[in-house]
Amino acid sequence: MALKKKPVTGMRDILPAEMQVREYVMNQIRDTYQGFGFTQIETPCVEHIENLTSKQGGDNEKLIFKILKRGEKLDLKAAQNEGDLVDGGLRYDLTLPLARYFSNNGAQLPMPFKALQMGSVWRADHPQKGRFRQFTQCDIDILGDETSMAEIELILATTAALGKICPENGFTVRVNDREILKGMAVYCGFEEGLLDQVFIILDKMDKIGIEGVKAELLEAGHARESVEKYVALLAGTGHDAAGVRKLGEVLESAMPKEVAGNLAYIMETVADVAETEFSLYFDPTLVRGMSYYTGTIFEVSMEGFGGSVAGGGRYDKMIGKFTGKDTPACGFSIGFERIITILMDQGGCAIGDKVKKAYLIEKGMDSVRFGEIMKQAMEERRNGVQVLVSHMNKNKKFQKGQLEKEGYTEFVNFYRESLK
Amino acid sequence: MALKKKPVTGMRDILPAEMQVREYVMNQIRDTYQGFGFTQIETPCVEHIENLTSKQGGDNEKLIFKILKRGEKLDLKAAQNEGDLVDGGLRYDLTLPLARYFSNNGAQLPMPFKALQMGSVWRADHPQKGRFRQFTQCDIDILGDETSMAEIELILATTAALGKICPENGFTVRVNDREILKGMAVYCGFEEGLLDQVFIILDKMDKIGIEGVKAELLEAGHARESVEKYVALLAGTGHDAAGVRKLGEVLESAMPKEVAGNLAYIMETVADVAETEFSLYFDPTLVRGMSYYTGTIFEVSMEGFGGSVAGGGRYDKMIGKFTGKDTPACGFSIGFERIITILMDQGGCAIGDKVKKAYLIEKGMDSVRFGEIMKQAMEERRNGVQVLVSHMNKNKKFQKGQLEKEGYTEFVNFYRESLK
Repeated sequence: MALKKKPVTGMRDILPAEMQVREYVMNQIRDTYQGFGFTQIETPCVEHIENLTSKQGGDNEKLIFKILKRGEKLDLKAAQNEGDLVDGGLRYDLTLPLARYFSNNGAQLPMPFKALQMGSVWRADHPQKGRFRQFTQCDIDILGDETSMAEIELILATTAALGKICPENGFTVRVNDREILKGMAVYCGFEEGLLDQVFIILDKMDKIGIEGVKAELLEAGHARESVEKYVALLAGTGHDAAGVRKLGEVLESAMPKEVAGNLAYIMETVADVAETEFSLYFDPTLVRGMSYYTGTIFEVSMEGFGGSVAGGGRYDKMIGKFTGKDTPACGFSIGFERIITILMDQGGCAIGDKVKKAYLIEKGMDSVRFGEIMKQAMEERRNGVQVLVSHMNKNKKFQKGQLEKEGYTEFVNFYRESLK
Repeated sequence: MALKKKPVTGMRDILPAEMQVREYVMNQIRDTYQGFGFTQIETPCVEHIENLTSKQGGDNEKLIFKILKRGEKLDLKAAQNEGDLVDGGLRYDLTLPLARYFSNNGAQLPMPFKALQMGSVWRADHPQKGRFRQFTQCDIDILGDETSMAEIELILATTAALGKICPENGFTVRVNDREILKGMAVYCGFEEGLLDQVFIILDKMDKIGIEGVKAELLEAGHARESVEKYVALLAGTGHDAAGVRKLGEVLESAMPKEVAGNLAYIMETVADVAETEFSLYFDPTLVRGMSYYTGTIFEVSMEGFGGSVAGGGRYDKMIGKFTGKDTPACGFSIGFERIITILMDQGGCAIGDKVKKAYLIEKGMDSVRFGEIMKQAMEERRNGVQVLVSHMNKNKKFQKGQLEKEGYTEFVNFYRESLK
């Protein structure tokens, strides 16, 4: 039987041209984050199925690639359901494995711990343009810092990285806090038990607009008074740090006192310190899907491209699920594939200035001469030139065209000396 | 229920100190191989189960992590055996996926194609010291070159990379050819149908010695005359290029004429051109396990460490299994985990000369002063210094110790001004 040539559904082969862009972006992100003192770590791609299905991952838990038990542990006859057949799964994000990692290795790590992770994650989503079942995430997290220094550093580092990768694309950082989200809804009189429903509708703002949100909230049966108060509050709130502080005063009765001041302080400090240019504003409609967030949340969008290119927030309760002891945690994840799509659409990016030279050798070259050519290649390589040694094809023009696509700009032909 | 803190059986969390060494080695390998014109590519970690179980992978096929079908495709009640439950698996090497990649994307690639792959592979092996169920491989392959230029480039590139990573460790490259292996056995009168058995015993040479091999061959029932002729031939063969040519003359009746000349030429050219120091010799007892090899095979060992650190060979028949048309192929794989183990045992390696500085800030710092400190950090980062900003712990000595383990050498303390 012939073997299958295509990759498995929803996953893909990465061709050389894209791979160069990916490597370049990876290095820019790594360098920037390391400059901020983030330390690279790695966890296995396979996680315990118990951890992956522990309700930390929201909807992603429905999308797990599960791994069959092996050997005697697999009892097909006795198996009643899927759970009896599997003992592991491919990680669907890098946050849950980080929480496990920290709980396993915390004693050997500095505290607070600033982690950098770059790795593949898998989700068995419906395949669609630009969305794949295996994709790369680049996360930074600060574990063990309950102060706003964590948020400030995360936003500074991520915007510095994005500024380096896409210097031509303007971008925007929107921030909010889960406590403010909750405070606003409580203040407007929504029932505490129905808040998640309110936020799911609010989260559609960028698709259906404020009128759409209003209509859906009413349709869902929420009190007209609450809905109208909510819409007015959303519309009337300022988007700068002063607006956040003012909102804090309005919500005094519905929210812990320090929340608004904390967010305003983060915004002011980031604006004051950042060396990269971007706009930063408070967005009271920012929800972010993951249920594990407990405080500040942030999201980055890039001009001219829908959807977000990075996002994150504070999740102070996840590590406690492993250790029994809460540890403050805050993270920021760059949507690596999104960035790559943007750069590839723009025609790639400047990858570096190494000279790429191809030596094309006619087949049947005399062995002494061949040795000389190879030595010449080694010398050029030693001097930093990338030298491809390849046989000359019959169709030299086509061969040259293919190599030009890979960035080769200089070609040296070596022919047999026909008179020998 | 508390979540599981340990990684899944046989896989591991990589701590910061090792991660630094891994990244450093990865970069050295990538830079060297790219200098030789190898082009980085990537395939999905998940492969079709049909491809993984197509008899290309030898014993590795017994060690596949299999992935459960999803949704309607999973019919637990109707399933008769494992095969009905799974549709994919984690790749056990990078060679089979490369063959699939080339058959899928060949039209868009230069020919010959020089591929570089660095990625994780998975094998559900019995966990033991230094052997893990997820590990990294670094492979280079040349597809579409039937000449010995492929072998020469592969050996030059791999030895250059190893020389850069481990400049203090002497290493040895042993070469052989599957045709010579076969020719010697046929010449000595072993039955053609039993050659694989002969090679399995021969492969134990480094463990049981020539006397052990002799005893096992006799025990397996091979003719004493053949065994004695074989042992004498193995012992009497020279290990340099001249020895290979001479062996070619002896085996004239049992082996294609050009085989020995080809291998001798590879050895001579590599010795002539290589800029890295290593010893290179012909080893007529080198077998290498993988059944897919069709010609030259090579293996690298490092002084003072048992086992091989790299290996490879020619496999001209695998791509044809996908495309129906044979394409010559030759590859070399660096045993990345082995190299890392050696370097970690030696106490790591020189990772670079970036200054790593930690700013330790007393909690509760006045916000204006804090902004100034953050700006100072940004300026140092811009100048290439790695600056970690962290809160000061109560136990400053312990904190400093932990950070020193991560390579921080400079510490700056920022205290609140208590008189304000």
